[in-house]
Amino acid sequence: MYNRITMDDLQKYLLLIERRLQENLERFSNPLPLYLFSAYHMGWIDEFGNPLSEFKRGKRLRPLLCVLINQAFNGPLDDALNLASSLEFLHNFSLVHDDIQDGDEKRHNRWTVWRLWGVPQAINVGDSLFNLCFQVLTQLFSPLLQRISLREITNTIQELIEGQYLDISFEKRNDVYLKEYMTMIEKKTARLFATSLFLGSFSANYKEDISRKFFEMGKNFGIFFQIADDIMGIWGDSRKTGKTPLGDLWKKKKTFPIIYLLQEASDKEKQRIYEIWNKSNLLEQDISYILQALERKRVKESSLNTAEEFFEKSYRIIEEYEGLIDLRLIKELFKNYYNLIFSSQS
Amino acid sequence: MYNRITMDDLQKYLLLIERRLQENLERFSNPLPLYLFSAYHMGWIDEFGNPLSEFKRGKRLRPLLCVLINQAFNGPLDDALNLASSLEFLHNFSLVHDDIQDGDEKRHNRWTVWRLWGVPQAINVGDSLFNLCFQVLTQLFSPLLQRISLREITNTIQELIEGQYLDISFEKRNDVYLKEYMTMIEKKTARLFATSLFLGSFSANYKEDISRKFFEMGKNFGIFFQIADDIMGIWGDSRKTGKTPLGDLWKKKKTFPIIYLLQEASDKEKQRIYEIWNKSNLLEQDISYILQALERKRVKESSLNTAEEFFEKSYRIIEEYEGLIDLRLIKELFKNYYNLIFSSQS
Repeated sequence: MYNRITMDDLQKYLLLIERRLQENLERFSNPLPLYLFSAYHMGWIDEFGNPLSEFKRGKRLRPLLCVLINQAFNGPLDDALNLASSLEFLHNFSLVHDDIQDGDEKRHNRWTVWRLWGVPQAINVGDSLFNLCFQVLTQLFSPLLQRISLREITNTIQELIEGQYLDISFEKRNDVYLKEYMTMIEKKTARLFATSLFLGSFSANYKEDISRKFFEMGKNFGIFFQIADDIMGIWGDSRKTGKTPLGDLWKKKKTFPIIYLLQEASDKEKQRIYEIWNKSNLLEQDISYILQALERKRVKESSLNTAEEFFEKSYRIIEEYEGLIDLRLIKELFKNYYNLIFSSQS
Repeated sequence: MYNRITMDDLQKYLLLIERRLQENLERFSNPLPLYLFSAYHMGWIDEFGNPLSEFKRGKRLRPLLCVLINQAFNGPLDDALNLASSLEFLHNFSLVHDDIQDGDEKRHNRWTVWRLWGVPQAINVGDSLFNLCFQVLTQLFSPLLQRISLREITNTIQELIEGQYLDISFEKRNDVYLKEYMTMIEKKTARLFATSLFLGSFSANYKEDISRKFFEMGKNFGIFFQIADDIMGIWGDSRKTGKTPLGDLWKKKKTFPIIYLLQEASDKEKQRIYEIWNKSNLLEQDISYILQALERKRVKESSLNTAEEFFEKSYRIIEEYEGLIDLRLIKELFKNYYNLIFSSQS
């Protein structure tokens, strides 16, 4: 029924996305160093402005999903690439501001923007990428597509900021419930995946109802993605993930496994964990205590099960539509991520 | 030819603008405290969430200009009020982030957002107002008006961020030239005034060429406004301006009079000023030295002359059009500001 697909197809789209991102940053730039800071963050140049022989970029997962669903519907690639750019700039504005908010000094093994050029200019870099996400939309020719994109992207950013608000507010609280945590990651992570698939689909078929199905697919994949990321932050094999081993525990991050643990823990165990969080510097034995508690309550298994549930919800929508449109590349991409999680724990 | 106008007409529009701002913030909100932080910044509630009997708001000058020019052309008030909201939210996002960037603890005699709720949440509040400025545009019914507004507002934000970038970069330099300073205030201050008048006009007449004239009017008024503000920051009567006497000198701010002084100063005078800027704490005698140097070079007079030049450029456009449309309210507003500057120096 379809042509044979290969992983080269994914590479082809990744290249097109990267080129369009660069063109769009350039189109809305001028010679101010501010734009070099953005290009640095996007992974194209080093901190001195020299081009990198190999890009140090993120996975470009959101723009890729946008383009793949558009192409599955044989949609206009040009619109999809502009929407993909908008979504990726949106993601990156949030990362630049997030690094300031969390005080993170490194991202993908490189210094963060605020660490190199200070908080005031890093706020500007984030704001500039934020604005770029809307500047890119001015290039959409169809008034309807522009209107719907403006609505969906502003709603997505609103949820993203609300998620960020909640995430930061959790830091000061001991008693965060799993339900609140799920609301937070739906807003902070999953909504952007949902919108990427919604807009990629809508830009091809102009049908809100079908596109809403892919919205659901993206949302569930996004929740899977975040819980999986949380699992990797504790048990991930650092050689495969590039993360610090047990990094999230040392940083006292309230991620899915920890909040799950608190829900299952006895009052005595909870008290001990709260005490650990009150310390200004954690010791090896504090980390061991939490790891043992996680093991006692079989939190890793439960977390993997929850992640898998959301993955399957998402996957069922692929199965529903794969007879109608060619979803093999998205399927491939989803499976890659699934395998990454379920094979790279230490 | 026209009905009699009174200052009550200005009050009427100010009330309509304030109500629409509140409606728009509410429409795109939910019960999270994040939105209370925004309402606090907008001047509607105190830091505990209680309504204020008298709003502690800014002058709402930009939205007022947008609505007044729209009404001068008998345009649709509803569109003008939404555009006015967008412009005012834009202005306020930049103030929230600016207060973080400058470390300012007070604005209009109230604690700033970061001072009350910390830098991470203040970044979110700014981002949220940033997004609101685009959410408001989704309510514009005309696809053409939406497209033009999106283009103009994104271009304005880009210049605003570039201006902010330049302003911050000046802090670390001694040798800032007047030409660079003028570029900075054109971007950081004047462009938003220009866009307010452009969009107010365009939303009424849908003519880019005429609206571009009012863009020029706004740009020149904006430059006047900023230089006047700089003059008040040094010589303003604090009882009338609400500013700290000589505040900008104590803060070592590189405003118009200071940069003008450096341009006129001898090498010896420059050296002395640079030495003063290198100190971590200024003394009364440092401030006196700068004040005397400003007096020797007659900088106040020259600054007032430059401000007046830009005011007149702006005013000439009013005179060009006042036979065709009723510009009396804008004229009134411009004159009020002009008089405020030329009567309130100590």
